[in-house]
Amino acid sequence: MENARSQVKALTFDVFGTVVDWYSSIVAEGEEFGDTHGIDIDWAQFALKWRAGYGPAMHRVRQGELPWQNIDALHRGILDSLLDEFKIEGLSEADKDHLNRVWHRLKPWPDAVSGLQRLRTRYIIATLSNGNVALLTNMAKFAGLPWDCILSAELVGHYKPDPEVYETAAALLGLSPHEVMMVAAHPGDLRASQAVGFQTALVPRPLEYGPGRTQGVNAHPSDLVASDFNKLADLLRIT
Amino acid sequence: MENARSQVKALTFDVFGTVVDWYSSIVAEGEEFGDTHGIDIDWAQFALKWRAGYGPAMHRVRQGELPWQNIDALHRGILDSLLDEFKIEGLSEADKDHLNRVWHRLKPWPDAVSGLQRLRTRYIIATLSNGNVALLTNMAKFAGLPWDCILSAELVGHYKPDPEVYETAAALLGLSPHEVMMVAAHPGDLRASQAVGFQTALVPRPLEYGPGRTQGVNAHPSDLVASDFNKLADLLRIT
Repeated sequence: MENARSQVKALTFDVFGTVVDWYSSIVAEGEEFGDTHGIDIDWAQFALKWRAGYGPAMHRVRQGELPWQNIDALHRGILDSLLDEFKIEGLSEADKDHLNRVWHRLKPWPDAVSGLQRLRTRYIIATLSNGNVALLTNMAKFAGLPWDCILSAELVGHYKPDPEVYETAAALLGLSPHEVMMVAAHPGDLRASQAVGFQTALVPRPLEYGPGRTQGVNAHPSDLVASDFNKLADLLRIT
Repeated sequence: MENARSQVKALTFDVFGTVVDWYSSIVAEGEEFGDTHGIDIDWAQFALKWRAGYGPAMHRVRQGELPWQNIDALHRGILDSLLDEFKIEGLSEADKDHLNRVWHRLKPWPDAVSGLQRLRTRYIIATLSNGNVALLTNMAKFAGLPWDCILSAELVGHYKPDPEVYETAAALLGLSPHEVMMVAAHPGDLRASQAVGFQTALVPRPLEYGPGRTQGVNAHPSDLVASDFNKLADLLRIT
């Protein structure tokens, strides 16, 4: 295992939930947006439902029920339904577009920037997210995430956990799968990357769905497990 | 023109020759490689021929004579021919691979890093190069180039100056072509980007082919023209 680990040259990161705290970012921006637009709803429920719509929407693309479209487009479709459901009316197209782009302005977990700065001293660090390239690029700029490279499902035309996403990411980095380590808060993402030969690190984010909504996650025996990115750097012996 | 310029949100950069000095980097590494491997050749000629082989090789891919392959593969094909031509024998596969990857280790022009740092305070800055993603990512890490995003012909399956490369780059950035400015030392690259609606900045690099081999370049009337990236930042009024 130590030996396998010494072959790692790049770390690829899941982003939503693993690097950034979508829940509290959307709730905070939503409440602010609500105040300025006179909308009084439960933004925590709004955030959770928005996120809950994302898996099924991607699944419809994966099954061929919807043509390929990026996450900005999927988020917008879900948003339009939620505006109906929450009876939010009278928003301009510019308002809706601004609200939809809250996903470009998510805030990093407190350890994320300092941990990534340490990890990038030894490894190539790249996103490997279902988020689209523009979203990930804007988010990096907004949040100060020091990626070496933005890799996205959008470049592959498949969504995670399809194997093509991981395979293409390794190929674009010019590496064999065993030279890449997937870092994620979600075991399903790690399992799918492992199936094509990636090494894996689980970084659980118990607050992903907000306080009091902790979901248990189970590590696979071969996973490195760290409670945050600085602990991951410690485990990889980066000073 | 000022008005059009105020709409720019991202700058995309040609890399070989515009950001990095391939000629002097390859000559310097070649001479060092020659010393350690007992190879006494004219590395300036070697570098110029290597680069000269690149356009025709891409053209063969563009015409469908060769299947799609990335620049690492094209560079390697040209290198193998040059090793024959210069009668360089006895190199191991590891030696050849190391030599081929000199293109991942090119040095930036003296103004490039400081200029990019200034430009990225206002704009998304991205590569838009025929170099492959791994090459551009490794080079950025080696040279300290602070890209927000690595965009490459490899992501499109077309080489510049095919219009698909520029169109796809703007789409991936979530921008309209007129919101993107192409920065290059080569008028042909600028013209092709302009044809799909990009704004353009010419940064001539008279030493691209080494001292005494200056090639004249003519700006188009609509181009911004700057002698280096800091001058470009000045023209864009970035302090």
